[in-house]
Amino acid sequence: MTQTSEQTRLDQFYADVAGYDLKPLWPIAQELMPLEPKPKTVPWLWRWKTLRELAERSGELITIDRGGDRRVLSLANPGLDGAPYATSTLWGAVQYLNPGEHAAAHRHTPGAIRFVLEGDGVYTTVNGDACDMHPGDLILTPNWNWHDHNSSSERSMIWFDGLDMPTVNALDAIFFEQYPDELLQPVEARNRSERRFPGKGLLPAGASAQPGPGHSPLLAYRWADTDAALEALLEDRGGPIASLEFTDPTTGRPVMPTMACEMHRLTPGGRTVAHRKVGSSVLVVYRGSGASVINGTRFEWGPGDMLAVPSWAAVDHEAAEPSDLFAITDAPVLKALGLYREATLEQPQEVTSSFPG
Amino acid sequence: MTQTSEQTRLDQFYADVAGYDLKPLWPIAQELMPLEPKPKTVPWLWRWKTLRELAERSGELITIDRGGDRRVLSLANPGLDGAPYATSTLWGAVQYLNPGEHAAAHRHTPGAIRFVLEGDGVYTTVNGDACDMHPGDLILTPNWNWHDHNSSSERSMIWFDGLDMPTVNALDAIFFEQYPDELLQPVEARNRSERRFPGKGLLPAGASAQPGPGHSPLLAYRWADTDAALEALLEDRGGPIASLEFTDPTTGRPVMPTMACEMHRLTPGGRTVAHRKVGSSVLVVYRGSGASVINGTRFEWGPGDMLAVPSWAAVDHEAAEPSDLFAITDAPVLKALGLYREATLEQPQEVTSSFPG
Amino acid sequence: MTQTSEQTRLDQFYADVAGYDLKPLWPIAQELMPLEPKPKTVPWLWRWKTLRELAERSGELITIDRGGDRRVLSLANPGLDGAPYATSTLWGAVQYLNPGEHAAAHRHTPGAIRFVLEGDGVYTTVNGDACDMHPGDLILTPNWNWHDHNSSSERSMIWFDGLDMPTVNALDAIFFEQYPDELLQPVEARNRSERRFPGKGLLPAGASAQPGPGHSPLLAYRWADTDAALEALLEDRGGPIASLEFTDPTTGRPVMPTMACEMHRLTPGGRTVAHRKVGSSVLVVYRGSGASVINGTRFEWGPGDMLAVPSWAAVDHEAAEPSDLFAITDAPVLKALGLYREATLEQPQEVTSSFPG
Amino acid sequence: MTQTSEQTRLDQFYADVAGYDLKPLWPIAQELMPLEPKPKTVPWLWRWKTLRELAERSGELITIDRGGDRRVLSLANPGLDGAPYATSTLWGAVQYLNPGEHAAAHRHTPGAIRFVLEGDGVYTTVNGDACDMHPGDLILTPNWNWHDHNSSSERSMIWFDGLDMPTVNALDAIFFEQYPDELLQPVEARNRSERRFPGKGLLPAGASAQPGPGHSPLLAYRWADTDAALEALLEDRGGPIASLEFTDPTTGRPVMPTMACEMHRLTPGGRTVAHRKVGSSVLVVYRGSGASVINGTRFEWGPGDMLAVPSWAAVDHEAAEPSDLFAITDAPVLKALGLYREATLEQPQEVTSSFPG
Repeated sequence: MTQTSEQTRLDQFYADVAGYDLKPLWPIAQELMPLEPKPKTVPWLWRWKTLRELAERSGELITIDRGGDRRVLSLANPGLDGAPYATSTLWGAVQYLNPGEHAAAHRHTPGAIRFVLEGDGVYTTVNGDACDMHPGDLILTPNWNWHDHNSSSERSMIWFDGLDMPTVNALDAIFFEQYPDELLQPVEARNRSERRFPGKGLLPAGASAQPGPGHSPLLAYRWADTDAALEALLEDRGGPIASLEFTDPTTGRPVMPTMACEMHRLTPGGRTVAHRKVGSSVLVVYRGSGASVINGTRFEWGPGDMLAVPSWAAVDHEAAEPSDLFAITDAPVLKALGLYREATLEQPQEVTSSFPG
Repeated sequence: MTQTSEQTRLDQFYADVAGYDLKPLWPIAQELMPLEPKPKTVPWLWRWKTLRELAERSGELITIDRGGDRRVLSLANPGLDGAPYATSTLWGAVQYLNPGEHAAAHRHTPGAIRFVLEGDGVYTTVNGDACDMHPGDLILTPNWNWHDHNSSSERSMIWFDGLDMPTVNALDAIFFEQYPDELLQPVEARNRSERRFPGKGLLPAGASAQPGPGHSPLLAYRWADTDAALEALLEDRGGPIASLEFTDPTTGRPVMPTMACEMHRLTPGGRTVAHRKVGSSVLVVYRGSGASVINGTRFEWGPGDMLAVPSWAAVDHEAAEPSDLFAITDAPVLKALGLYREATLEQPQEVTSSFPG
Repeated sequence: MTQTSEQTRLDQFYADVAGYDLKPLWPIAQELMPLEPKPKTVPWLWRWKTLRELAERSGELITIDRGGDRRVLSLANPGLDGAPYATSTLWGAVQYLNPGEHAAAHRHTPGAIRFVLEGDGVYTTVNGDACDMHPGDLILTPNWNWHDHNSSSERSMIWFDGLDMPTVNALDAIFFEQYPDELLQPVEARNRSERRFPGKGLLPAGASAQPGPGHSPLLAYRWADTDAALEALLEDRGGPIASLEFTDPTTGRPVMPTMACEMHRLTPGGRTVAHRKVGSSVLVVYRGSGASVINGTRFEWGPGDMLAVPSWAAVDHEAAEPSDLFAITDAPVLKALGLYREATLEQPQEVTSSFPG
Repeated sequence: MTQTSEQTRLDQFYADVAGYDLKPLWPIAQELMPLEPKPKTVPWLWRWKTLRELAERSGELITIDRGGDRRVLSLANPGLDGAPYATSTLWGAVQYLNPGEHAAAHRHTPGAIRFVLEGDGVYTTVNGDACDMHPGDLILTPNWNWHDHNSSSERSMIWFDGLDMPTVNALDAIFFEQYPDELLQPVEARNRSERRFPGKGLLPAGASAQPGPGHSPLLAYRWADTDAALEALLEDRGGPIASLEFTDPTTGRPVMPTMACEMHRLTPGGRTVAHRKVGSSVLVVYRGSGASVINGTRFEWGPGDMLAVPSWAAVDHEAAEPSDLFAITDAPVLKALGLYREATLEQPQEVTSSFPG
């Protein structure tokens, strides 16, 4: 067979394949299966100054009626083709509530966490349990739990919203429901989950024998407890970093099967050892200032700044003053599916660029 | 404030938000969080006649050298914007091996299964264990296991490839490695996994106490066993459908944490009860003929045909003669993450269209 | 204080302590907490010739009416102060059923297994499922399952009964109930569990997602399967011993949480490596002949002989001809409670005595 | 056959059976398998006045040298034939340490807990971690952990010792080892486990992914935390009883696989609902006074009194003043083995006798 006729046959073959909703693997195999993850998510930083100012303006311009259920500005990673996602698997956002406002009750299969940045006097009702919110507190509104947000304050409040929505969306598993008549839920109790799971290693008798709901039944983690725990861990392990995970007290597992919450306390005095892990994160600076190097780019940060960290990116941190970084990650998903890996870099990362300040 | 100036301020606000890599939630909330899953995956059918003919032509035109590691035509669901995926979470394909050919060894984090449709005399070596392949057999090449395919036959072979690749890709967790020097693996044993996990409920002593590899250590499920098991299930439950799952004999769990394999035996005499479940499937007709109704569209099928079933689609089947449908699903992922739901339809689906024959 | 008066005070102290239902630890500490287990169970062997002859005589002399529910002779380990137990944690016995007899239905929290030694034509009904019994078969009657034994044969049958009764008794957890009106259960199906769990690694679809009953739902393990599995294991591992465990096909765990069942195939040609493990066993020779050394004493055995092996005893085996040893052990209990240990002896045991032949 | 000759044959049969180390089941079946548990353990109470006085006298009369490793008076349940056990499965005792004394390091497979009743300035070193002991604190010395007790106080201390020893003994699984050279362990850290597991639902990052040691790695539960947790539970549930379990913070499971620890807060105002459960308990009155009815017998109690509760006994409590009862139970064993049951009595127990005061 001549080369020309072979090419003709090949062209005809590729045309036929395409016409029957098929794709040959061989031309795209290397792109489909890279040697290591090639995320579209890019390392990125959102400044608190911007987030706060725009959130405030949204509070003036957008009523919650006009704006749907929630007044939320989501972090849109520039690598993700305009999707409103902080990373390929995680949603990050700021939510703003004016004094006296109420955000109506609904529920959805994506699970959400709230990490309070500023303000006071707000409570989130979760399946009837009104959970008070203060700066530094972590509040859970898990998969398919009714929830509404309510201000009884004279100050506005801003918090960080973290959701597993991109993951749940990729799995075509999103369900959503408005609370009947679009009302708020009746408040059955205040901070009840904290009374029911009242201390470390202390559970209501009988709890250990029963299968739980698959997520933490403790809905509020208070800053005072978190702060004391970080201090104790730091004392035990030494600096420059102490890391804790918020967990389900009835299982010791992540707060949700789809998303983990962590808090990292950094002490000044040098960069942490750089490491990579499969799966992405969103970091929220709660306190302090410093810099992180992600895949060679240096990101300087201060209170309220938010960072997107892609899968398998090399990351290290350096605090300029004592600092606390809150984080959400998709690690529980990777671990459940046998896809988690991590590695420590043998040498410090070279810094090749700086994120614009 | 006049309406105009408010609109001006709003326009300015939206422009600023976009300039800072943020997205307001309220205009897109309903699209992001639909009342129930709105998959881009469409119900679809690929005909065996086409698959077989194109696979055969690829065998003539494409050497495995030229075509990369594998001679594979993947099902490209028309709803997925040109991606080479059968559904949003599952890869399905036909793979073709000429007599005497060898497809070189590699490994990757996506897990794969092979379900043999035609031919004989091929073995897949998985981490040194040469697993023979015959029609109706299911062969596993799990996450990060070395594998190569080898023909010692005078006939070509076609099999169905099922992978969790879209899911692993959505999680930015794909790693890939060529076997050193691009050689085949040495064969250490033949069908060893079957000797080590030799009977139902019979394990090597001590196996129950040790944590396994996270996937089934049994790598081959033979058609004769599957056939007998389907017959027994059908006898126990009665028709029109008996369904079995291939599982890890050391745990009773799905063969992989990311993908389940099932076989359904249908008897003629009426449509099965329609149901929906969260998560998608790819069906492969191994034997028989009949029709499936998916979201109101009727798909007639015969041996070798392949169907894509989207998440939450209503599905029922009707066999014209005794039929066996092999299936891969992403159910283990949905279940691990607390996102699985299923429902039975109270009434038979109305058939509103037919897929072109 | 003088020595005398101190002794007087001590005597008075010990008398007072005893009078108040107290015990001082110090005089008995070493006996209570030995350096390693000091079981009262002694290594022992019961001869088939004796067991069979006495069972047959019981068949002539004892009606099942007269004898309560069951015609059973239990192995009474001479170390256990007259208790009818083979070891401190396991009950072993022979049960004898005359042609056409029925042993009435009852249930109890101790779990039982039946391993058939001789005869045919008997079925045990377990919660409505009539399970046929043939030589070499293992039949389960788990915790709180109704069960009765029925002969439709012209031959009598003898089987080995293994129970966890001493353990359940030590925990004060025995419940027992006669079937209403002391009738047999209605037979709902024949060998149904085998149809429902029909092949290795093959489960009814959906089974892997549901919590099971805590014991194997497969109630019968057939000799032909066991024999083939032993042969495959032996081929994979080589001699002189291949060991399999009967497991719950839905979990890969032992058939019961309190008792494991194993089968060991021995090939002639030398002693196995001696080892110890925490927990006791009862061995039943199904086929072949040979000898076992237990704590230095040599026990010669042939078909039907039964041996008691205490916790932490050194054990090795040597087959004179191809041999199969069935075993029950309490290993699941030790493992669940974090008390299991095992060790391989570095040198063969010295044989210091022989059990009388 | 005449009646006489049949009797002769029967007598001969029974003699032969006994001579071959066998026991017929039928004469003893009902005793072996009672309709419900018939524990030999009897409900019993030991008075603090006695315990304290005898412990003090032991402190004067017995050196720790003379008395073995520990100065311990164990509760010897009168039903248990002289065994030094509080119940069939649990050891309970008081341990007394003089000012400045040291009880040498050892380890054993039985797990132990210490619940402090009186005194201060003692620490127990567990695998190098010196755990301070104060009244109301619970300290764990789990299976095979090195431990020694040390007084740096000018006061003596008394605490309650709870062990799973009868269970571990029934399983022939006791191992014991003296610390080399019979020295104390070096103290590596003080109260380290509390720094490592520092708050409720707060774990060191990464802890949730790793298999733990099978018992709680948190070794000390402080009275202030327990007290606050009981108050919160009581507020949530209302009286007359709030019950918490001490658990492994990394799993939510009991502190040990063999023994659970609980604390019950009772408020005056009526008897609790009577219930039964399989498995036994030892109760220690930490605070308050009241009465318990166990199988119809009324036991009045005050601070420091200890009670044995047999398996399946009907139990209710009534506080005369706010009271706290510490308890150890064998519930984890029963649950792991599928033997746990509990039931609520439909009517209050009739009180038929009083335990002598």
